[in-house]
Formats: sequence, structure tokens, C-alpha cells
Amino acid sequence: MKHNRFILPALLAFTSLAQANVTFSNPDDSLGEPVNYPQFQSVLKASELQISDPEGKKGNKEYFALDGDFSGLVSPYFYVDKKSEALVFKMKQTHLRNEVRVHNNFRTDLPNKHYTLSAEVEMIDPVGSMKDSDSKQNEITFLQVHNKGLDNQGTHNVPHPLLRVVWKEDNNGVKGHFWGIVKNNAVICKGTFGKKNKDKEMCKADVAYKKYDLGKAPVGKATAFDITVGNKQLLIDVDGKRLVEHDIDYWRHLLSYFKAGVYNQFTHGMSEAHFYKLQYKATETE
Amino acid sequence: MKHNRFILPALLAFTSLAQANVTFSNPDDSLGEPVNYPQFQSVLKASELQISDPEGKKGNKEYFALDGDFSGLVSPYFYVDKKSEALVFKMKQTHLRNEVRVHNNFRTDLPNKHYTLSAEVEMIDPVGSMKDSDSKQNEITFLQVHNKGLDNQGTHNVPHPLLRVVWKEDNNGVKGHFWGIVKNNAVICKGTFGKKNKDKEMCKADVAYKKYDLGKAPVGKATAFDITVGNKQLLIDVDGKRLVEHDIDYWRHLLSYFKAGVYNQFTHGMSEAHFYKLQYKATETE
Repeated sequence: MKHNRFILPALLAFTSLAQANVTFSNPDDSLGEPVNYPQFQSVLKASELQISDPEGKKGNKEYFALDGDFSGLVSPYFYVDKKSEALVFKMKQTHLRNEVRVHNNFRTDLPNKHYTLSAEVEMIDPVGSMKDSDSKQNEITFLQVHNKGLDNQGTHNVPHPLLRVVWKEDNNGVKGHFWGIVKNNAVICKGTFGKKNKDKEMCKADVAYKKYDLGKAPVGKATAFDITVGNKQLLIDVDGKRLVEHDIDYWRHLLSYFKAGVYNQFTHGMSEAHFYKLQYKATETE
Repeated sequence: MKHNRFILPALLAFTSLAQANVTFSNPDDSLGEPVNYPQFQSVLKASELQISDPEGKKGNKEYFALDGDFSGLVSPYFYVDKKSEALVFKMKQTHLRNEVRVHNNFRTDLPNKHYTLSAEVEMIDPVGSMKDSDSKQNEITFLQVHNKGLDNQGTHNVPHPLLRVVWKEDNNGVKGHFWGIVKNNAVICKGTFGKKNKDKEMCKADVAYKKYDLGKAPVGKATAFDITVGNKQLLIDVDGKRLVEHDIDYWRHLLSYFKAGVYNQFTHGMSEAHFYKLQYKATETE
């Protein structure tokens, strides 16, 4: 179900919706309210907040600021650190999330239209986040390009993100790197619509996905990511260096969008990402 | 199930496959064998034959000449008229077919690649074919652009043709015209994969399809059709006149292919189409 913060109190007053458990609060006014920081206002205005109840079930998710108005949205999970002015995303538990979802669903195949999400991100002690995890994946996704489907109504969407930028604990011995995990075809490999495909070659992990090593994650220091999509290409710059140029011709029918925040693929811990910069830009050239 | 004519006799000898009922014969050598006529050799070599058992169940279909070798494929339903040298397709009953399927599955979105099917066709007494029909549709489809899906394996195919060129008995009072019926989005509107869509606006007949009037079908005389697909456009010329220029940007992810022959959407009768010309051409420009 979808609601925003204005409807939420009324719903809570009159019903006992088990889903509506995400709360916002700012004890002692100690937290910065994201909407008040000019450097984040542009991206927030173009976005909504998709956030889980950290005490709720696996996969739970609620929607806020559907109109782009983030006023009053502040909590110990989503705030600006007053000292560093970092936009902080935290979340507990596996398969829970706390993400800003940029509203615009854009085509990726047009030669003259490009869309860029730029972020400077520091993962705060991700090793510590995962010390009690019993997952084999042990990843935190903090930037995404996802797809809405053929249209803004979500028709025939593919339930796999085009790109997840993750911090990964261990990838065949490579520890603590950032990775760009790119869905390498438009085939649905799970759920009802993936039943016919999921055992085929095209759905094997190393066929369906391509993993780009984006380098060792530094400690105590942010990393700059620029993700650009357009002209049938997915580009990733890390600290100003182009590390990925991936052909996404196969994605040409799907409308895509950006997300930034945290999504947990590990168990029994808390993720924490500090965004010193988060900007969204659409450019049209002649 | 798929088989070709070489396997077929063996299957018939050892099994009792109910499907394998299409037979080929040329009584008194009275019928021209299509493969022997130079003007049809090019398209046949690039194609297979998909034909129903006229005495079989609704929707039954068998496959022949999967390797493009049409030798020996002649019957009172599929032959060349020795006198007129027309390639004749006949079929009884609704939802049965007799069609040449061109093998090439092509992209429709590339600016420099175009695919053309050219035919000169006469429908033989279609009014008589339908005189006992109790269908409301009363159409004979004789040229098609269909889609295979995202790839040559048929992944995520859309179970609706992009184009059916039909002879239609009556379209809101317009009698005996040819029509180009174009699927106007890439949304699946039937079956398991269409369940979520079929009651939505995008699946309403006049939204999902656009009908182009291609003119009154002449009696006793063939009509020339050139169907060209490429550069995100579907073009139809009738007797050398461009009647349709339809934007198919929405079809950009799907591989498409041509069919020609007869497919019956009327009951209790026999269709008959005479093709004086049938050519397939792929062109690549700089």
C-alpha cells in the first residue's frame, strides 16, 4: 500500500494497519532535517522516500513524500548529521531499505538524452555492520538504476535492477570493494513471469549479471560516483575516472530510474551510509 | 511439437501421434509443386511452412521445410496453379492456417536496416467463403508481421501480431475491404502474462489496435502489397501507393518476422488466396 505522511496519522488513528509502522521523530532537535539543507533540496524535491520499518518483516516498505515534499521527514534512520552535513541513511536487518527514489522514469536509448546521479558516499564501518551476519551475500546496495517497465504504469517491468552499486564484504577473496552489478539482459528470471526462463542459460548468475570491480572502499573518506545513463550506455565514473562503459541496448524498451540510500543484503546488523553529495541531473543535447 | 517431413513418416509408422495428420499429395500430377517455380524459390528457401490439418482441431498447426527445402510439399491446399502460376493457399475452418513463415527474426528499430515483404494477392471469392459463417469477425488474414520475442529463443514474446493484413467482410458497414490491423503497443493482453493488463485501457480494442483501411478488394484481380519494417516504422504500400506510415518505436525490443498465406477467422468455409508474387528482401544502407 502507498500513503504519504499526511494521510498516515489519520490512517493510524482510525485503523490498525500493521504496515504503517515507520515513524519520524527528532529527539532534542539533535538531528538535521534533510529538507532544510540546500545541497540536498534539489534531489529530494524530485524524489520520494521508500523506507522500511526496521522492526517490521523482511521486505516491508513504506512510501513518503510522494509529492517531493520532505518536510518533517527526519528520524534516527534518515537525517543530516549537523556537524559533517552528511545525509545519513541507516537500516537494520536483511532485505530492508531506506532509499530516496528519484521520480523520473526515463528512456535509456535516446541518443540525445542523458541522466546522471552523482553521489559522494562513505560507508560507515560496513565490516562491523556484517560481523554477526550469517548471509553469504553480505552486501550493502547504496546506488541503483532500476526499471519501471514499458510505461509509467509499470507494465511488464523487469524485477531486476539494471545496476546495483554495492559495498561487498568478500567477492572470491576480494574484500571490502565497491562493485557495479549490472543486469546483462532484459530477461525476467524470477516469479511467475520468470518461470519459463529461470533454469535457462540466460538466467545463470554469470550470464544474467556482469560485475565491475569499482575499487577498494576507503575507510574514513567518501568516494565520488557518477552514474550516467543514455544513448544505450551505462557509464560509471569513480572519483572522476571512467571505470564502466556498458552497452545497454538490450534495455532499450524499459523506463529506468535512480535510487540512493541503503538496501541490506546481510543479516543481524545495521547499515549506515553518509552522502556528502547527492544530485540528479537530466540533460538534453542537440 | 515440431518436425519436418523427413521425420514425419517415421513418426507415423511407429506412433499414433494425433497431431501428425497433415498429408501431401499430387493426384495425377495436376498441381504445380511450389518449389519448382523460380519466382517463388527465393522466399521459400528463406522460409518454413506452417500448416493446419484441415480436419483437425481448432488451432492445430504443423511445421514443414524447417530447413527451407520445400521439395515434395504440394497438396490441394498448397500448390501452384499450373495455368496462372499463382501460389495457392487454401484452408478450411476457423483458427486454422496455411502460411509460409520467413525464418529471419529481425530488429525493427535500426535506422539502416529495412525488411520488405512484397506480394501480389487475389482473394478468391471471400464472400462465398463466408456465406455459412456464424463468426462476427469474418476475416481472412493473408499477410502478417509477427514477433518472436526479445531473442531467437522466443523469450518474452508478445502473443499479438504487429500487423495483420486482412480481407474483412464488414467493418461497420464497410464491406469487402482490405485492412491493416496494427497492434499499437507492446502490452500482452491475453494469457497468463496478460492477466494484469487485460482489463486496462491499454488493452481495449481501439487502444491496443489501429485499423488502416487499405481499400476495396477488387474481384478477379490481384492487389500489390509492399510491407516494409525498419527504422521504427511500419510502412504499407498498396498498388504502389503508400497508405500506412506507422511509428513502431514501442516495438523496438522485439524481433519480428513475416508470414504469408491464409489464416481463417470465420467459420464453416474454405479460404483461398492466390499469390502471383511473393518476395522477401532485407536491405542494409549506410
